[in-house]
Amino acid sequence: MTIQVFGHKSPDTDSTGSPIIWAWYLSEIKGEAAKPVLLGEPNTEAAFMLSHWGLDKPEIISGVEADAPVVIVDTNNPAELPENINAADIRAIIDHHKLVGGLETKGPIDIRIEPLACTATIMYKMIGDDLAQAPKAVKGAMLTCILSDTLEFRSPTTTQEDKAIAYALAEDLGVDISAYAADMFAAKSDVSAFSDAELLRMDSKEYAVEGTKFRVSVLETTAPRMVLDRKDSLMASMTQVAQEDGVDQVLLFVVDILNEEATLLVPNDLVKTVAEKSFGATVGGDTVVLPGVMSRKKQIIPNLKL
Amino acid sequence: MTIQVFGHKSPDTDSTGSPIIWAWYLSEIKGEAAKPVLLGEPNTEAAFMLSHWGLDKPEIISGVEADAPVVIVDTNNPAELPENINAADIRAIIDHHKLVGGLETKGPIDIRIEPLACTATIMYKMIGDDLAQAPKAVKGAMLTCILSDTLEFRSPTTTQEDKAIAYALAEDLGVDISAYAADMFAAKSDVSAFSDAELLRMDSKEYAVEGTKFRVSVLETTAPRMVLDRKDSLMASMTQVAQEDGVDQVLLFVVDILNEEATLLVPNDLVKTVAEKSFGATVGGDTVVLPGVMSRKKQIIPNLKL
Repeated sequence: MTIQVFGHKSPDTDSTGSPIIWAWYLSEIKGEAAKPVLLGEPNTEAAFMLSHWGLDKPEIISGVEADAPVVIVDTNNPAELPENINAADIRAIIDHHKLVGGLETKGPIDIRIEPLACTATIMYKMIGDDLAQAPKAVKGAMLTCILSDTLEFRSPTTTQEDKAIAYALAEDLGVDISAYAADMFAAKSDVSAFSDAELLRMDSKEYAVEGTKFRVSVLETTAPRMVLDRKDSLMASMTQVAQEDGVDQVLLFVVDILNEEATLLVPNDLVKTVAEKSFGATVGGDTVVLPGVMSRKKQIIPNLKL
Repeated sequence: MTIQVFGHKSPDTDSTGSPIIWAWYLSEIKGEAAKPVLLGEPNTEAAFMLSHWGLDKPEIISGVEADAPVVIVDTNNPAELPENINAADIRAIIDHHKLVGGLETKGPIDIRIEPLACTATIMYKMIGDDLAQAPKAVKGAMLTCILSDTLEFRSPTTTQEDKAIAYALAEDLGVDISAYAADMFAAKSDVSAFSDAELLRMDSKEYAVEGTKFRVSVLETTAPRMVLDRKDSLMASMTQVAQEDGVDQVLLFVVDILNEEATLLVPNDLVKTVAEKSFGATVGGDTVVLPGVMSRKKQIIPNLKL
């Protein structure tokens, strides 16, 4: 049976590109039948990557069958995976997030989690010299994943390994990193086609603080105005999204990639308290700028207080 | 703060040796203050390893403090670790068991789990060329761990990697594998000092089948008679051990390393049913021989039925 390789339910660049990279490695180098699949529609940056490197869009699947062989990448969180994931035959997990607990495997399997910015960086290390055999598109996907997850090395999640590997790939591919990253971020920033609810759910993780459940949403953009011009309707939409998703509050951080700051929308006193207690911010109106805040993983989630 | 490196609560050779190996690597190669500790008294084979290679017995600790930096090896099962393990600052996990779920980390960390016979084998791969700087005792611990977990390559958990690495270490150290393994197994087989309850808990994992909780205990020995001569009092002791440990039944498999078979003690009809349904055995008396059964992980647990 063909091994399905997938990331999380809201496929960003790393969750779209890493399955493509690993399915290539399994099938072409390891000789195991494998294919990349997606658990949702790729975001605009991921779609840009596919079209730029001439990669087929992986099939979108709605679930996995019991005992189906799968490899999970870019997450180890059951909440971000198909409901019956533990019934599948999980063959391997490759990830760079904290261990959440909840995934179980039937036998010993390959698990590789490292505190790097990007799943593709870990794959680069695991594939080693065999990468020389990869087509340009696979290497291009790798580079795109790293530039995406590191926000072109601006994010504090960036490690020296991510950076060195991205430079090596860019040189190999003849890619000008800053020009290419600008195109990627422009693609990501074009959110005009999305509804408010879609924007609030696009890049979002649930996180609870003392029993209060948050949906912590981030929009990384080089054109923050495009989002902030819609702030009134975005804030109005938060109540319904929270209700539908069973959380108490949506937090939306608009991350300005170029100016290296985040703007948090402040629809009510709860979020005002969060902004003040978590980030020491002084909140006047319905938005607050948080200088230097770029990373949900490193800067937002670990600081969230009520 | 010094990083404490430990394995599970019933320290066998791998759970005693791997912390020593990894603490050496962290402190001598990575320059991080680290020390091996134990969560219980090492078994007789592990004690033999310590004395043979002139290694100090690691301190036995009864728990971990909140936020204490720790590295967990040879398990990822919270039930086999201190109660408040998730409050510790888990820095890394290196293991070769199935993912159980339940461990959580505060941030992204290094996790490396591979389907190999032994944690030390994974460490050998991770340490790479730096192993040249290791003292003989560290390499000796590595070799002992691999020979122990593979039962000198007899266990079906043995992989080509475990075998190749053990041979490389033995050559480097000038160790005659079969003579050394015989000494190890003789040490493990000397169980005269242990009470029945201690024997039943010495190498034991809890596992539930359809709501029935088992303590699945294994004694690997080259002298099965030493254990089987005590079978009546061992079976009598099972009831109390089960009660004290909150399980429904203790299963004791006496693994004859040299003859490559296990003898299961059959104290009652429940265990008789387990023997028949799980292993297709025909049970006449109060023991049953299961030819070829050597590994709890590969052969016992996956087959347990009621």
